[in-house]
Amino acid sequence: MKLIIGNKNYSSWSLRGWLAAKQSGLAFDELTVALYGEEWEATKREQGEFQPSGGKVPLLWDGDVVVWDSLAILEYLADKVGRDRFWPKADEPRAMARATVAEMHSSYFALRHQCPMNLRARAKVKLTEDLQRDIVRILSLWAEARARFGRGGPFLFGTFSAADIFYAPVVCRFRTYGITVPGFAKAYMDAIWEHAWMQEWVAAAEAEEWTISAFDVGATA
Amino acid sequence: MKLIIGNKNYSSWSLRGWLAAKQSGLAFDELTVALYGEEWEATKREQGEFQPSGGKVPLLWDGDVVVWDSLAILEYLADKVGRDRFWPKADEPRAMARATVAEMHSSYFALRHQCPMNLRARAKVKLTEDLQRDIVRILSLWAEARARFGRGGPFLFGTFSAADIFYAPVVCRFRTYGITVPGFAKAYMDAIWEHAWMQEWVAAAEAEEWTISAFDVGATA
Repeated sequence: MKLIIGNKNYSSWSLRGWLAAKQSGLAFDELTVALYGEEWEATKREQGEFQPSGGKVPLLWDGDVVVWDSLAILEYLADKVGRDRFWPKADEPRAMARATVAEMHSSYFALRHQCPMNLRARAKVKLTEDLQRDIVRILSLWAEARARFGRGGPFLFGTFSAADIFYAPVVCRFRTYGITVPGFAKAYMDAIWEHAWMQEWVAAAEAEEWTISAFDVGATA
Repeated sequence: MKLIIGNKNYSSWSLRGWLAAKQSGLAFDELTVALYGEEWEATKREQGEFQPSGGKVPLLWDGDVVVWDSLAILEYLADKVGRDRFWPKADEPRAMARATVAEMHSSYFALRHQCPMNLRARAKVKLTEDLQRDIVRILSLWAEARARFGRGGPFLFGTFSAADIFYAPVVCRFRTYGITVPGFAKAYMDAIWEHAWMQEWVAAAEAEEWTISAFDVGATA
Protein backbone atom coordinates (compact mmCIF):
# COMPACT_ATOMS: atom_id res chain seq x y z
CA MET A 1 0.00 0.00 0.00
CA LYS A 2 1.06 3.56 -0.65
CA LEU A 3 -0.27 6.50 1.36
CA ILE A 4 0.07 10.00 -0.08
CA ILE A 5 -0.02 12.75 2.51
CA GLY A 6 0.68 16.47 2.87
CA ASN A 7 3.17 18.31 5.10
CA LYS A 8 3.16 16.69 8.52
CA ASN A 9 3.26 20.05 10.25
CA TYR A 10 0.06 21.34 8.67
CA SER A 11 -2.10 18.59 7.23
CA SER A 12 -4.61 17.47 9.83
CA TRP A 13 -6.49 15.17 7.45
CA SER A 14 -3.20 13.52 6.48
CA LEU A 15 -2.49 12.82 10.15
CA ARG A 16 -5.84 11.02 10.38
CA GLY A 17 -5.15 8.91 7.27
CA TRP A 18 -1.67 8.08 8.51
CA LEU A 19 -2.83 7.07 12.00
CA ALA A 20 -5.49 4.89 10.36
CA ALA A 21 -2.81 3.20 8.25
CA LYS A 22 -0.71 2.64 11.39
CA GLN A 23 -3.72 1.26 13.27
CA SER A 24 -4.42 -1.23 10.48
CA GLY A 25 -1.13 -2.97 11.23
CA LEU A 26 -0.51 -3.33 7.50
CA ALA A 27 2.76 -2.30 5.86
CA PHE A 28 2.59 0.90 3.83
CA ASP A 29 4.90 3.34 2.06
CA GLU A 30 4.47 7.06 2.59
CA LEU A 31 4.79 9.76 0.01
CA THR A 32 4.75 13.29 1.38
CA VAL A 33 3.88 16.09 -1.03
CA ALA A 34 4.56 19.66 0.08
CA LEU A 35 1.22 21.46 0.13
CA TYR A 36 0.91 25.17 -0.64
CA GLY A 37 4.11 25.38 -2.71
CA GLU A 38 4.67 25.52 -6.46
CA GLU A 39 5.25 21.76 -6.58
CA TRP A 40 1.76 21.16 -5.22
CA GLU A 41 0.15 23.60 -7.63
CA ALA A 42 1.98 21.98 -10.53
CA THR A 43 0.86 18.53 -9.38
CA LYS A 44 -2.74 19.66 -9.29
CA ARG A 45 -2.43 21.32 -12.71
CA GLU A 46 -1.05 18.14 -14.23
CA GLN A 47 -4.12 16.30 -12.98
CA GLY A 48 -2.01 13.23 -12.67
CA GLU A 49 -1.84 10.82 -9.79
CA PHE A 50 -3.99 12.99 -7.52
CA GLN A 51 -6.95 13.34 -9.82
CA PRO A 52 -9.09 10.65 -8.11
CA SER A 53 -9.35 12.78 -5.00
CA GLY A 54 -9.79 16.11 -6.74
CA GLY A 55 -6.33 17.19 -5.66
CA LYS A 56 -6.68 16.44 -1.96
CA VAL A 57 -4.71 14.40 0.54
CA PRO A 58 -4.64 11.85 2.06
CA LEU A 59 -4.93 9.29 -0.69
CA LEU A 60 -4.37 5.54 -0.36
CA TRP A 61 -3.38 3.21 -3.19
CA ASP A 62 -3.77 -0.50 -2.56
CA GLY A 63 -2.86 -2.26 -5.79
CA ASP A 64 -5.53 -1.12 -8.26
CA VAL A 65 -7.75 0.27 -5.53
CA VAL A 66 -7.65 3.98 -4.77
CA VAL A 67 -9.35 5.53 -1.75
CA TRP A 68 -9.34 9.19 -0.80
CA ASP A 69 -10.71 10.98 2.26
CA SER A 70 -9.45 10.09 5.72
CA LEU A 71 -12.73 8.55 6.89
CA ALA A 72 -13.11 6.42 3.76
CA ILE A 73 -9.50 5.29 4.12
CA LEU A 74 -10.13 4.28 7.72
CA GLU A 75 -13.28 2.33 6.75
CA TYR A 76 -11.54 0.71 3.79
CA LEU A 77 -8.78 -0.48 6.13
CA ALA A 78 -11.35 -1.64 8.69
CA ASP A 79 -12.99 -3.70 5.93
CA LYS A 80 -9.57 -5.24 5.28
CA VAL A 81 -8.35 -6.02 8.79
CA GLY A 82 -11.60 -6.23 10.74
CA ARG A 83 -13.86 -3.60 12.28
CA ASP A 84 -12.81 -4.34 15.87
CA ARG A 85 -9.35 -2.93 15.25
CA PHE A 86 -10.87 0.52 14.71
CA TRP A 87 -14.23 0.61 16.50
CA PRO A 88 -15.47 -0.40 19.97
CA LYS A 89 -16.95 -3.92 19.98
CA ALA A 90 -20.16 -3.19 21.93
CA ASP A 91 -23.07 -1.46 20.19
CA GLU A 92 -23.47 1.49 22.54
CA PRO A 93 -19.89 2.81 22.54
CA ARG A 94 -19.53 1.97 18.83
CA ALA A 95 -22.65 4.00 18.02
CA MET A 96 -21.28 6.97 19.92
CA ALA A 97 -17.81 6.57 18.42
CA ARG A 98 -19.28 6.49 14.91
CA ALA A 99 -21.34 9.62 15.58
CA THR A 100 -18.43 11.43 17.21
CA VAL A 101 -16.15 10.67 14.26
CA ALA A 102 -18.78 11.62 11.67
CA GLU A 103 -19.40 14.90 13.49
CA MET A 104 -15.67 15.70 13.38
CA HIS A 105 -15.68 14.91 9.69
CA SER A 106 -18.46 17.38 8.86
CA SER A 107 -18.27 20.06 11.55
CA TYR A 108 -16.19 22.43 13.69
CA PHE A 109 -15.53 24.96 10.97
CA ALA A 110 -14.61 27.70 13.44
CA LEU A 111 -11.93 25.51 15.02
CA ARG A 112 -10.67 24.35 11.65
CA HIS A 113 -10.46 27.84 10.16
CA GLN A 114 -9.43 29.88 13.18
CA CYS A 115 -6.96 27.33 14.58
CA PRO A 116 -5.27 25.65 11.61
CA MET A 117 -3.02 22.78 12.58
CA ASN A 118 0.56 23.95 12.94
CA LEU A 119 2.52 21.60 15.16
CA ARG A 120 5.65 23.73 15.40
CA ALA A 121 3.91 26.92 16.45
CA ARG A 122 2.57 28.26 19.76
CA ALA A 123 0.08 31.08 19.34
CA LYS A 124 -2.86 32.96 20.80
CA VAL A 125 -6.28 32.89 19.18
CA LYS A 126 -9.31 35.11 19.76
CA LEU A 127 -12.05 33.03 21.38
CA THR A 128 -14.96 34.01 19.13
CA GLU A 129 -18.43 32.76 19.98
CA ASP A 130 -18.29 30.18 17.15
CA LEU A 131 -14.92 28.91 18.27
CA GLN A 132 -16.03 28.65 21.87
CA ARG A 133 -19.11 26.69 20.80
CA ASP A 134 -16.93 24.20 18.90
CA ILE A 135 -14.57 23.79 21.85
CA VAL A 136 -17.42 23.27 24.34
CA ARG A 137 -19.08 20.73 22.06
CA ILE A 138 -15.84 18.78 21.64
CA LEU A 139 -15.12 18.81 25.38
CA SER A 140 -18.69 17.59 26.05
CA LEU A 141 -18.23 14.67 23.67
CA TRP A 142 -14.84 13.83 25.19
CA ALA A 143 -16.31 14.01 28.71
CA GLU A 144 -19.21 11.73 27.84
CA ALA A 145 -17.06 9.19 26.00
CA ARG A 146 -14.46 9.09 28.78
CA ALA A 147 -17.06 8.86 31.58
CA ARG A 148 -19.30 6.26 29.96
CA PHE A 149 -16.92 4.16 27.89
CA GLY A 150 -13.34 5.08 28.75
CA ARG A 151 -12.64 2.77 31.65
CA GLY A 152 -10.39 0.38 29.69
CA GLY A 153 -7.62 2.89 28.99
CA PRO A 154 -6.67 6.56 28.61
CA PHE A 155 -8.34 7.09 25.24
CA LEU A 156 -11.87 8.27 24.39
CA PHE A 157 -13.34 4.78 24.36
CA GLY A 158 -10.62 3.17 26.47
CA THR A 159 -8.20 1.68 23.97
CA PHE A 160 -6.96 3.66 20.95
CA SER A 161 -9.73 3.75 18.32
CA ALA A 162 -11.07 5.57 15.26
CA ALA A 163 -12.33 8.31 17.58
CA ASP A 164 -8.79 9.07 18.75
CA ILE A 165 -7.52 8.99 15.18
CA PHE A 166 -10.10 11.64 14.30
CA TYR A 167 -9.57 13.85 17.35
CA ALA A 168 -5.74 13.68 17.43
CA PRO A 169 -5.49 16.81 15.22
CA VAL A 170 -7.86 18.60 17.62
CA VAL A 171 -5.45 17.78 20.44
CA CYS A 172 -2.66 19.33 18.32
CA ARG A 173 -4.74 22.48 17.73
CA PHE A 174 -5.64 22.83 21.42
CA ARG A 175 -1.91 22.61 22.26
CA THR A 176 -0.77 25.08 19.62
CA TYR A 177 -3.35 27.70 20.59
CA GLY A 178 -3.12 27.07 24.34
CA ILE A 179 -6.83 26.32 24.77
CA THR A 180 -7.66 25.98 28.46
CA VAL A 181 -9.29 22.62 29.19
CA PRO A 182 -10.44 20.77 32.32
CA GLY A 183 -8.26 18.12 33.92
CA PHE A 184 -9.86 15.07 32.33
CA ALA A 185 -9.30 16.62 28.88
CA LYS A 186 -5.71 17.51 29.71
CA ALA A 187 -5.09 13.88 30.69
CA TYR A 188 -6.63 12.69 27.42
CA MET A 189 -4.57 15.18 25.42
CA ASP A 190 -1.40 13.97 27.15
CA ALA A 191 -2.27 10.35 26.30
CA ILE A 192 -2.66 11.27 22.62
CA TRP A 193 0.48 13.38 22.59
CA GLU A 194 2.61 10.69 24.23
CA HIS A 195 1.39 7.94 21.91
CA ALA A 196 4.40 6.54 20.02
CA TRP A 197 2.84 7.18 16.59
CA MET A 198 2.03 10.75 17.51
CA GLN A 199 5.61 11.30 18.68
CA GLU A 200 6.87 9.83 15.40
CA TRP A 201 4.63 12.19 13.41
CA VAL A 202 5.62 15.24 15.46
CA ALA A 203 9.34 14.49 15.07
CA ALA A 204 8.88 14.26 11.31
CA ALA A 205 6.95 17.54 11.31
CA GLU A 206 9.80 19.23 13.20
CA ALA A 207 12.28 17.94 10.65
CA GLU A 208 10.32 19.17 7.62
CA GLU A 209 11.60 22.03 5.54
CA TRP A 210 9.92 25.25 6.66
CA THR A 211 8.69 26.35 3.29
CA ILE A 212 6.20 28.88 4.52
CA SER A 213 5.87 31.17 7.49
CA ALA A 214 4.17 29.68 10.50
CA PHE A 215 0.78 31.34 10.07
CA ASP A 216 0.62 31.98 6.39
CA VAL A 217 -1.78 29.07 5.91
CA GLY A 218 -5.45 28.32 6.21
CA ALA A 219 -6.74 25.03 7.53
CA THR A 220 -5.98 22.11 5.26
CA ALA A 221 -8.83 20.21 3.61
CA MET B 1 -36.14 1.93 16.43
CA LYS B 2 -37.14 5.57 16.34
CA LEU B 3 -35.79 8.02 13.80
CA ILE B 4 -36.07 11.73 14.50
CA ILE B 5 -35.93 13.90 11.42
CA GLY B 6 -36.58 17.47 10.31
CA ASN B 7 -39.03 18.87 7.75
CA LYS B 8 -39.04 16.59 4.73
CA ASN B 9 -39.12 19.53 2.35
CA TYR B 10 -35.89 21.07 3.64
CA SER B 11 -33.79 18.64 5.62
CA SER B 12 -31.32 16.98 3.30
CA TRP B 13 -29.46 15.20 6.10
CA SER B 14 -32.76 13.81 7.37
CA LEU B 15 -33.48 12.40 3.92
CA ARG B 16 -30.16 10.55 4.07
CA GLY B 17 -30.87 9.12 7.53
CA TRP B 18 -34.38 8.11 6.49
CA LEU B 19 -33.22 6.39 3.28
CA ALA B 20 -30.59 4.56 5.32
CA ALA B 21 -33.28 3.36 7.73
CA LYS B 22 -35.41 2.20 4.77
CA GLN B 23 -32.42 0.43 3.21
CA SER B 24 -31.75 -1.45 6.46
CA GLY B 25 -35.05 -3.29 6.05
CA LEU B 26 -35.69 -2.86 9.79
CA ALA B 27 -38.94 -1.48 11.17
CA PHE B 28 -38.73 2.07 12.52
CA ASP B 29 -40.99 4.86 13.75
CA GLU B 30 -40.52 8.37 12.47
CA LEU B 31 -40.80 11.55 14.47
CA THR B 32 -40.69 14.73 12.42
CA VAL B 33 -39.77 17.93 14.19
CA ALA B 34 -40.39 21.21 12.38
CA LEU B 35 -37.03 22.94 11.97
CA TYR B 36 -36.63 26.71 11.98
CA GLY B 37 -39.81 27.37 13.97
CA GLU B 38 -40.34 28.30 17.62
CA GLU B 39 -40.98 24.65 18.50
CA TRP B 40 -37.53 23.72 17.26
CA GLU B 41 -35.84 26.57 19.11
CA ALA B 42 -37.69 25.61 22.29
CA THR B 43 -36.64 21.99 21.87
CA LYS B 44 -33.02 22.99 21.51
CA ARG B 45 -33.26 25.32 24.52
CA GLU B 46 -34.68 22.58 26.69
CA GLN B 47 -31.64 20.44 25.85
CA GLY B 48 -33.84 17.42 26.25
CA GLU B 49 -34.07 14.50 23.91
CA PHE B 50 -31.93 16.12 21.23
CA GLN B 51 -28.93 16.88 23.39
CA PRO B 52 -26.85 13.86 22.27
CA SER B 53 -26.59 15.30 18.77
CA GLY B 54 -26.08 18.92 19.81
CA GLY B 55 -29.53 19.80 18.52
CA LYS B 56 -29.20 18.32 15.04
CA VAL B 57 -31.23 15.85 13.02
CA PRO B 58 -31.34 13.05 12.04
CA LEU B 59 -31.08 11.10 15.27
CA LEU B 60 -31.68 7.37 15.69
CA TRP B 61 -32.71 5.67 18.94
CA ASP B 62 -32.38 1.91 19.05
CA GLY B 63 -33.28 0.83 22.56
CA ASP B 64 -30.62 2.42 24.76
CA VAL B 65 -28.37 3.19 21.82
CA VAL B 66 -28.43 6.68 20.32
CA VAL B 67 -26.71 7.56 17.05
CA TRP B 68 -26.66 10.96 15.39
CA ASP B 69 -25.27 12.07 12.03
CA SER B 70 -26.56 10.51 8.82
CA LEU B 71 -23.30 8.73 7.99
CA ALA B 72 -22.93 7.28 11.49
CA ILE B 73 -26.58 6.15 11.36
CA LEU B 74 -25.95 4.42 8.05
CA GLU B 75 -22.84 2.67 9.38
CA TYR B 76 -24.59 1.70 12.61
CA LEU B 77 -27.37 0.10 10.57
CA ALA B 78 -24.83 -1.58 8.29
CA ASP B 79 -23.20 -3.05 11.42
CA LYS B 80 -26.63 -4.39 12.36
CA VAL B 81 -27.87 -5.86 9.07
CA GLY B 82 -24.62 -6.50 7.22
CA ARG B 83 -22.34 -4.27 5.19
CA ASP B 84 -23.41 -5.70 1.82
CA ARG B 85 -26.84 -4.15 2.11
CA PHE B 86 -25.27 -0.68 1.95
CA TRP B 87 -21.92 -1.00 0.20
CA PRO B 88 -20.69 -2.71 -2.99
CA LYS B 89 -19.26 -6.16 -2.29
CA ALA B 90 -16.06 -5.88 -4.34
CA ASP B 91 -13.10 -3.88 -2.99
CA GLU B 92 -12.67 -1.48 -5.90
CA PRO B 93 -16.23 -0.14 -6.15
CA ARG B 94 -16.61 -0.20 -2.37
CA ALA B 95 -13.46 1.90 -1.97
CA MET B 96 -14.79 4.44 -4.46
CA ALA B 97 -18.26 4.40 -2.90
CA ARG B 98 -16.79 5.02 0.55
CA ALA B 99 -14.67 7.91 -0.73
CA THR B 100 -17.58 9.41 -2.70
CA VAL B 101 -19.86 9.28 0.34
CA ALA B 102 -17.22 10.69 2.69
CA GLU B 103 -16.57 13.54 0.24
CA MET B 104 -20.28 14.39 0.18
CA HIS B 105 -20.27 14.35 3.96
CA SER B 106 -17.45 16.90 4.29
CA SER B 107 -17.61 18.99 1.12
CA TYR B 108 -19.66 20.91 -1.47
CA PHE B 109 -20.28 23.95 0.68
CA ALA B 110 -21.17 26.15 -2.29
CA LEU B 111 -23.87 23.72 -3.39
CA ARG B 112 -25.16 23.29 0.14
CA HIS B 113 -25.29 27.00 0.89
CA GLN B 114 -26.31 28.39 -2.48
CA CYS B 115 -28.82 25.65 -3.34
CA PRO B 116 -30.54 24.64 -0.09
CA MET B 117 -32.83 21.64 -0.47
CA ASN B 118 -36.38 22.78 -1.07
CA LEU B 119 -38.37 20.05 -2.77
CA ARG B 120 -41.48 22.14 -3.43
CA ALA B 121 -39.67 25.04 -5.09
CA ARG B 122 -38.33 25.67 -8.58
CA ALA B 123 -35.80 28.46 -8.76
CA LYS B 124 -32.84 29.96 -10.57
CA VAL B 125 -29.42 30.18 -8.97
CA LYS B 126 -26.36 32.20 -9.98
CA LEU B 127 -23.65 29.80 -11.14
CA THR B 128 -20.74 31.18 -9.15
CA GLU B 129 -17.28 29.73 -9.72
CA ASP B 130 -17.43 27.77 -6.44
CA LEU B 131 -20.85 26.35 -7.27
CA GLN B 132 -19.74 25.34 -10.74
CA ARG B 133 -16.68 23.62 -9.29
CA ASP B 134 -18.90 21.59 -6.92
CA ILE B 135 -21.27 20.62 -9.74
CA VAL B 136 -18.43 19.57 -12.08
CA ARG B 137 -16.80 17.52 -9.32
CA ILE B 138 -20.07 15.74 -8.51
CA LEU B 139 -20.78 15.02 -12.19
CA SER B 140 -17.23 13.65 -12.60
CA LEU B 141 -17.74 11.27 -9.68
CA TRP B 142 -21.13 10.18 -11.01
CA ALA B 143 -19.67 9.62 -14.49
CA GLU B 144 -16.80 7.54 -13.16
CA ALA B 145 -18.99 5.45 -10.85
CA ARG B 146 -21.58 4.81 -13.56
CA ALA B 147 -18.99 4.00 -16.25
CA ARG B 148 -16.78 1.75 -14.14
CA PHE B 149 -19.19 0.14 -11.69
CA GLY B 150 -22.76 0.92 -12.73
CA ARG B 151 -23.50 -1.94 -15.09
CA GLY B 152 -25.79 -3.84 -12.72
CA GLY B 153 -28.52 -1.19 -12.55
CA PRO B 154 -29.40 2.49 -12.90
CA PHE B 155 -27.71 3.67 -9.68
CA LEU B 156 -24.18 4.95 -9.08
CA PHE B 157 -22.75 1.51 -8.35
CA GLY B 158 -25.50 -0.44 -10.11
CA THR B 159 -27.93 -1.37 -7.35
CA PHE B 160 -29.14 1.18 -4.80
CA SER B 161 -26.39 1.78 -2.24
CA ALA B 162 -25.02 4.15 0.38
CA ALA B 163 -23.72 6.34 -2.43
CA ASP B 164 -27.26 6.92 -3.74
CA ILE B 165 -28.51 7.57 -0.22
CA PHE B 166 -25.90 10.30 0.10
CA TYR B 167 -26.40 11.86 -3.33
CA ALA B 168 -30.22 11.73 -3.38
CA PRO B 169 -30.44 15.24 -1.86
CA VAL B 170 -28.05 16.48 -4.55
CA VAL B 171 -30.49 15.14 -7.15
CA CYS B 172 -33.23 17.14 -5.40
CA ARG B 173 -31.13 20.31 -5.45
CA PHE B 174 -30.20 19.90 -9.13
CA ARG B 175 -33.96 19.55 -9.91
CA THR B 176 -35.05 22.53 -7.82
CA TYR B 177 -32.44 24.86 -9.31
CA GLY B 178 -32.67 23.50 -12.86
CA ILE B 179 -28.98 22.61 -13.10
CA THR B 180 -28.14 21.52 -16.65
CA VAL B 181 -26.57 18.05 -16.68
CA PRO B 182 -25.44 15.61 -19.37
CA GLY B 183 -27.68 12.71 -20.42
CA PHE B 184 -26.11 10.03 -18.25
CA ALA B 185 -26.64 12.24 -15.19
CA LYS B 186 -30.22 13.00 -16.19
CA ALA B 187 -30.89 9.24 -16.41
CA TYR B 188 -29.37 8.73 -12.97
CA MET B 189 -31.39 11.59 -11.51
CA ASP B 190 -34.58 10.10 -12.96
CA ALA B 191 -33.76 6.73 -11.41
CA ILE B 192 -33.36 8.36 -7.99
CA TRP B 193 -36.47 10.49 -8.38
CA GLU B 194 -38.63 7.54 -9.45
CA HIS B 195 -37.44 5.30 -6.62
CA ALA B 196 -40.46 4.35 -4.47
CA TRP B 197 -38.90 5.65 -1.24
CA MET B 198 -38.03 8.96 -2.87
CA GLN B 199 -41.60 9.31 -4.12
CA GLU B 200 -42.88 8.54 -0.64
CA TRP B 201 -40.62 11.21 0.86
CA VAL B 202 -41.56 13.82 -1.78
CA ALA B 203 -45.29 13.20 -1.25
CA ALA B 204 -44.83 13.73 2.49
CA ALA B 205 -42.85 16.92 1.83
CA GLU B 206 -45.67 18.24 -0.38
CA ALA B 207 -48.16 17.52 2.39
CA GLU B 208 -46.18 19.31 5.10
CA GLU B 209 -47.39 22.56 6.58
CA TRP B 210 -45.66 25.45 4.84
CA THR B 211 -44.35 27.15 7.91
CA ILE B 212 -41.83 29.38 6.21
CA SER B 213 -41.50 31.06 2.84
CA ALA B 214 -39.83 28.99 0.20
CA PHE B 215 -36.41 30.64 0.28
CA ASP B 216 -36.23 32.01 3.75
CA VAL B 217 -33.89 29.23 4.77
CA GLY B 218 -30.24 28.38 4.62
CA ALA B 219 -29.01 24.88 3.99
CA THR B 220 -29.80 22.50 6.82
CA ALA B 221 -27.00 20.95 8.79
